[in-house]
Amino acid sequence: MSEAGIVGGIPGVPPGRLFDDRDALIAAKVHRNKQYGIDFDGRSGLATAIVLSGGYADDKDYGDRILYTGERGRDPRTGRHVKDQTWTLGNQGLRRAHLEGSPVRVVRGANGNGPDLPESGYRYDGLYLVTECSEGERDGFRICQFTLELLPSNEVSVGPGLAELEGGTRYPGRRTTSSSRIVRDAKIARDVKRRHDFTCQICGIRLEVPGGAIAEGAHIRPLGLRHAGPDVPSNLLCLCPNDHALFDHGALWIDESLTIWVSATGEPIGTLRTVAGHAIDLDALAYHRDQIVTGP
Amino acid sequence: MSEAGIVGGIPGVPPGRLFDDRDALIAAKVHRNKQYGIDFDGRSGLATAIVLSGGYADDKDYGDRILYTGERGRDPRTGRHVKDQTWTLGNQGLRRAHLEGSPVRVVRGANGNGPDLPESGYRYDGLYLVTECSEGERDGFRICQFTLELLPSNEVSVGPGLAELEGGTRYPGRRTTSSSRIVRDAKIARDVKRRHDFTCQICGIRLEVPGGAIAEGAHIRPLGLRHAGPDVPSNLLCLCPNDHALFDHGALWIDESLTIWVSATGEPIGTLRTVAGHAIDLDALAYHRDQIVTGP
Repeated sequence: MSEAGIVGGIPGVPPGRLFDDRDALIAAKVHRNKQYGIDFDGRSGLATAIVLSGGYADDKDYGDRILYTGERGRDPRTGRHVKDQTWTLGNQGLRRAHLEGSPVRVVRGANGNGPDLPESGYRYDGLYLVTECSEGERDGFRICQFTLELLPSNEVSVGPGLAELEGGTRYPGRRTTSSSRIVRDAKIARDVKRRHDFTCQICGIRLEVPGGAIAEGAHIRPLGLRHAGPDVPSNLLCLCPNDHALFDHGALWIDESLTIWVSATGEPIGTLRTVAGHAIDLDALAYHRDQIVTGP
Repeated sequence: MSEAGIVGGIPGVPPGRLFDDRDALIAAKVHRNKQYGIDFDGRSGLATAIVLSGGYADDKDYGDRILYTGERGRDPRTGRHVKDQTWTLGNQGLRRAHLEGSPVRVVRGANGNGPDLPESGYRYDGLYLVTECSEGERDGFRICQFTLELLPSNEVSVGPGLAELEGGTRYPGRRTTSSSRIVRDAKIARDVKRRHDFTCQICGIRLEVPGGAIAEGAHIRPLGLRHAGPDVPSNLLCLCPNDHALFDHGALWIDESLTIWVSATGEPIGTLRTVAGHAIDLDALAYHRDQIVTGP
């Protein structure tokens, strides 16, 4: 693996392409690791591809969404966890792909569990985005957990050296969301933000812009398939974009007395600001601390 | 207009519903202003609906995307601009809808310009998001400009009191992007962020999270139909999410000597941080200052 791994699509390898075995995947540079599920590129620090095969009960393949458990820590004969997974190598590579918004190639093997598998061998199934990264426990050991979601085909990279194809100018009919900070917020989030007058509950900043002020509605326990948090005001915080990002990535957590802690240092930095009429769900805060705050 | 306007869909009024005239739109609460194109709700400060009719040359209707010019300042007989438009009333309401991510009902009239118009009267065509807000000049006068984009139907509000329908838990097959801060970044943005080691070029902060650090790639001259900025490194900045939001909303601008100015106060706050190998497009900075920074 002296050569840097390719991030994104491999030129000449469209989704749906079949491969006889893992040697063929390696030769095509689609997935260059024969032993592990995650192809980790040491040079960039990014995971570039995963293989879904072997039918680990930890993994759930819904087609366009995948709940994926990290590598190592399992007994290869039984599939049971026999030691903690660590945030190193492939697991850390997937976490960095999550942090950088970097796409991951997904390959499905005939012996996987899922709604649409190849009849034999392996099939390259396109580019996915790591949309969640969290910690869980299985058989008494720590596991690294990821959610991957299929990227729309018109936002898909077509290979190295063609970066300009990814950005949107080639697709005038569609704006990618990648670089736009204008997001739609649901009514419930708009209501919470207004109640706090767009003031961040963590740092107290109120970002003033022409025409008003801006803030973001941040879910404490995330919505979606894996975490299934409720979309109610008590599961929302009004945060500035920076603290929203820090909170979502587990750099900060909040205890039951609403003290705010920095995960990396273990030091408190203040108390969550509250307003009358907007209660905070303490169970959601505990969930966030236990599952979203990942180890070093 | 003593009653508060409804934000989002009107219960019982599906997209495609036809109306004979503007009185019928008012009776159904779809668009409650008979004179102007923008239905502005004074209580919330939000624009809740627009009517596309009259065929102003300023407006471009592409169906799922609309380039829309604000209200007032035009001679109603000729359609020519005869004075500056101001960021008040309906124009300010659309700007606030942009800031808050609040949906806007779109109504098309038979006498509009567009690819799909009703044969007579008016048609309610669903909810749009205000994705851009900028200033321009026409006939020598200032105009307020907006881009609206059709919301996917499964993210569409169905009326007041049903806020939970907007958030995503009802749609387990699809995550809305509204509250997730995990966005995909194109390769070009990832490269710029890495070159700056995820340090904000405006404030110098480096947001550390478990597994690394995070930043965002911010386009100086926006991509897309209206602004058509290029997706090249010199049109990108590496910014923290807060400064990305402030810059995109025109709260900050940067001059040709790379001094950073606060729009509201007219005061400088520092100099843009640069690194070797990442040149900044000064024309793009001038475009941002002239078009994206809107007046008070």
